[in-house]
Amino acid sequence: MQTLSQLHTIFQTYLEENKFNFSPKELYEPIDYILSLGGKRLRPLLVLMSYDLFKDDVEAALPAAFSVEIFHNFSLLHDDIMDEAPLRRGQATVHTKYDINTGILSGDVMLIYTYKYLMQLATNSNLAEIINVFNQVAVDVCEGQQFDMNFEKRDNVAIDEYINMISLKTASLVAGAMKMGALIAGASAEDAEHAYEFGRNVGIAFQLQDDILDTFGDPQKFGKKVGGDIVQNKKTYLVLKSLEVADAEVSEKLSQQMVTKTTDEVSKIETVRGIFESLNVRELAEGVKQGYQKTAFEHLNSIQVTDERKQTLKQLATELLEREV
Amino acid sequence: MQTLSQLHTIFQTYLEENKFNFSPKELYEPIDYILSLGGKRLRPLLVLMSYDLFKDDVEAALPAAFSVEIFHNFSLLHDDIMDEAPLRRGQATVHTKYDINTGILSGDVMLIYTYKYLMQLATNSNLAEIINVFNQVAVDVCEGQQFDMNFEKRDNVAIDEYINMISLKTASLVAGAMKMGALIAGASAEDAEHAYEFGRNVGIAFQLQDDILDTFGDPQKFGKKVGGDIVQNKKTYLVLKSLEVADAEVSEKLSQQMVTKTTDEVSKIETVRGIFESLNVRELAEGVKQGYQKTAFEHLNSIQVTDERKQTLKQLATELLEREV
Repeated sequence: MQTLSQLHTIFQTYLEENKFNFSPKELYEPIDYILSLGGKRLRPLLVLMSYDLFKDDVEAALPAAFSVEIFHNFSLLHDDIMDEAPLRRGQATVHTKYDINTGILSGDVMLIYTYKYLMQLATNSNLAEIINVFNQVAVDVCEGQQFDMNFEKRDNVAIDEYINMISLKTASLVAGAMKMGALIAGASAEDAEHAYEFGRNVGIAFQLQDDILDTFGDPQKFGKKVGGDIVQNKKTYLVLKSLEVADAEVSEKLSQQMVTKTTDEVSKIETVRGIFESLNVRELAEGVKQGYQKTAFEHLNSIQVTDERKQTLKQLATELLEREV
Repeated sequence: MQTLSQLHTIFQTYLEENKFNFSPKELYEPIDYILSLGGKRLRPLLVLMSYDLFKDDVEAALPAAFSVEIFHNFSLLHDDIMDEAPLRRGQATVHTKYDINTGILSGDVMLIYTYKYLMQLATNSNLAEIINVFNQVAVDVCEGQQFDMNFEKRDNVAIDEYINMISLKTASLVAGAMKMGALIAGASAEDAEHAYEFGRNVGIAFQLQDDILDTFGDPQKFGKKVGGDIVQNKKTYLVLKSLEVADAEVSEKLSQQMVTKTTDEVSKIETVRGIFESLNVRELAEGVKQGYQKTAFEHLNSIQVTDERKQTLKQLATELLEREV
C-alpha cells in the first residue's frame, strides 16, 4: 500500500518519462504544454488508488492512469475552444497560445494516444472490458458537454437533467478511473462495480460542492473567483433549485438577473446570493451533496478488501468533499 | 467470394442499420448527416475485400469496415473546420450547416465510436494487433494533416517530404484498412504485411494521380473543378517537381504565381499548366505513380491465396488508378 503522496510522485515521474517529444512538433508540443499546466492529477491517482485497493504493484496501472489524464486534458482542450476560454489554470489555453486549428488537431491526437496507452495493457485478461469502460466514459463526457451547451440556450432545465448532465460530464470519468483501476488489478465484477459507484457519487458530490463554493466559498481558499458562476449566468444547482422552490415574484427576479450582462458584478453577485439565502438553497444543496457522499462511502465500504487498504481513498475523498466553505 | 457491387450493398445495408439516432440529437445528428453524404466507401470496402481474400463470411469484418468509414469521415469533418471549407461532396460541411462547436464535439464522439465498433471484434484472437494497427493509422492521419498545414507556410518543401506527407495523410488509412481486413480473417503476418503495402502503394499512387488529374483531367470526368489546386496555390507533386527541375528563371516565374491571389483564374491556370508542360513534370509524375502502382500489384501478387480471390481487388485498383486523364 502506498500513501497519496507516494502515488503522486510515482505518477509525476511517469509523466516526465512520457513526454510527447515527437515530430511534427507543431502537433505534439501543445500536448506537453497542457499536461505541464498541472492540476491535482486526481483522476489518474484514482486509477492507481483503486488498483492499490487490490494489488501492490501499482506500476502496472500507470499506462491506464496516464491514459485517463490525457483524456481529461483532451476534453479540457476542446472544451476551452468551444467556451472561448482564454485561461486554464492561470495560463493561456492551447488555442490562445497556439491557434484553434492546433487545438483541434492536437486534441484529436491526444484522444488517439489515450488508446495507445490503454493498449499497453494488451496482455491483461480484462483488456476488452477495460476498453469498453473507457469508451463508455468517453462518450458520456461528450454527451455531458453537449447537454451543458444545450442548457445554456434553455430556460426550463430540471434538476434531474442537471444531475444527469454533471453525472455524464464530470462524474463518469471519476467513476471510470476507479473501475479501470479495479479491473486492471483483476477485482471481482462486484467490487469493480462498487468502485465505479464510489467514483460516480464522489464526482457528483464534488460538482455540487463546486457549485456551492463558487458562490459561498472563502475567496482565500477557493482558488477561483468567487461569484464567477453568477456573473456568467451559469445554470448551477443553486439557480435551478431556486427556480424550483421560489414563488412567482422571486423566480421572475432571479430569471431577470440570469439574462443580464452587468458591469456591476459585485452588486449582481450580492443580489443573486441574497435570493439563494432567502430560499435556503445552499442548505438544500449541501443536503443533496451529503447524500451522494454517503452513498459513495457505502460503496467503498462494500468492497471486499481490508479497511486498511481503503484508508488512502477515504482520506482523499474526505479532503476533497469537506473543503471549508 | 463476392463482387464489388455485392460488397457495396452489404456495407450500405449495415450503414443504414447503424444510424446514430441517440440523444442528445445535437451531438449525433451531424454524424448521420456527414455519413449520408456518400462517397465511394472505398476504405470500408477495402476492409471487406481484404477479408474476402482469406475468408468468405465478410459480415465478420463489417464493424471494422464501419469503424474505418467513421474515422475517415471524422477526419474530413475536423479537416473541413481547419480548412474553413464550405462544401463537402457538393453539400454544406458540418460546421457550416450546424456550427464549429458542433463540428468539434461531433467529430470527437465519432473518433470514440470508431473504437466502440472495433470492440465488437473483442473475441477475435488478433484484437490487440487490430487496434494497434488502427491506432498507428489514426496517428499517421493527424501527423499528415499537420505536415500538410506546415507545408502551406513553407517554400522549400522537398519531394521526399511531400511523399511522406501523403503517405501519412492519405495512404496510411488505405493500408490500415487492408491490414485490418487481413488480420480479422486470421491471415499470416506476412500476408497481412503484403496487404498493408498493397494499400499503402495504391494510396500514394492514387494521390499522385489526383494531383495530375486536378490539372490535366477532363472536366467532364474528373468530378472536381480542373485547375483547383493551381488556383489555391497548393504545393502538389507537379509544383514541387517543377521547382526541383526548373532553371532559376522558370522557377522564379512559378514561385511568383504560387504567391498570387488572382481574379483571372483561367489565365493563371493556363500559365502554370504551361510551365508544367515545358518541364515535362506530368510525365515525370505519371512515371512515379506507375512505380507505386507496380509495387502495389507485386505485394498483392505475393499474398498466398488463389488468383481468383484477388480478382475483385485487382479490378478495383485498376479502375481507380487508370481513370482516363
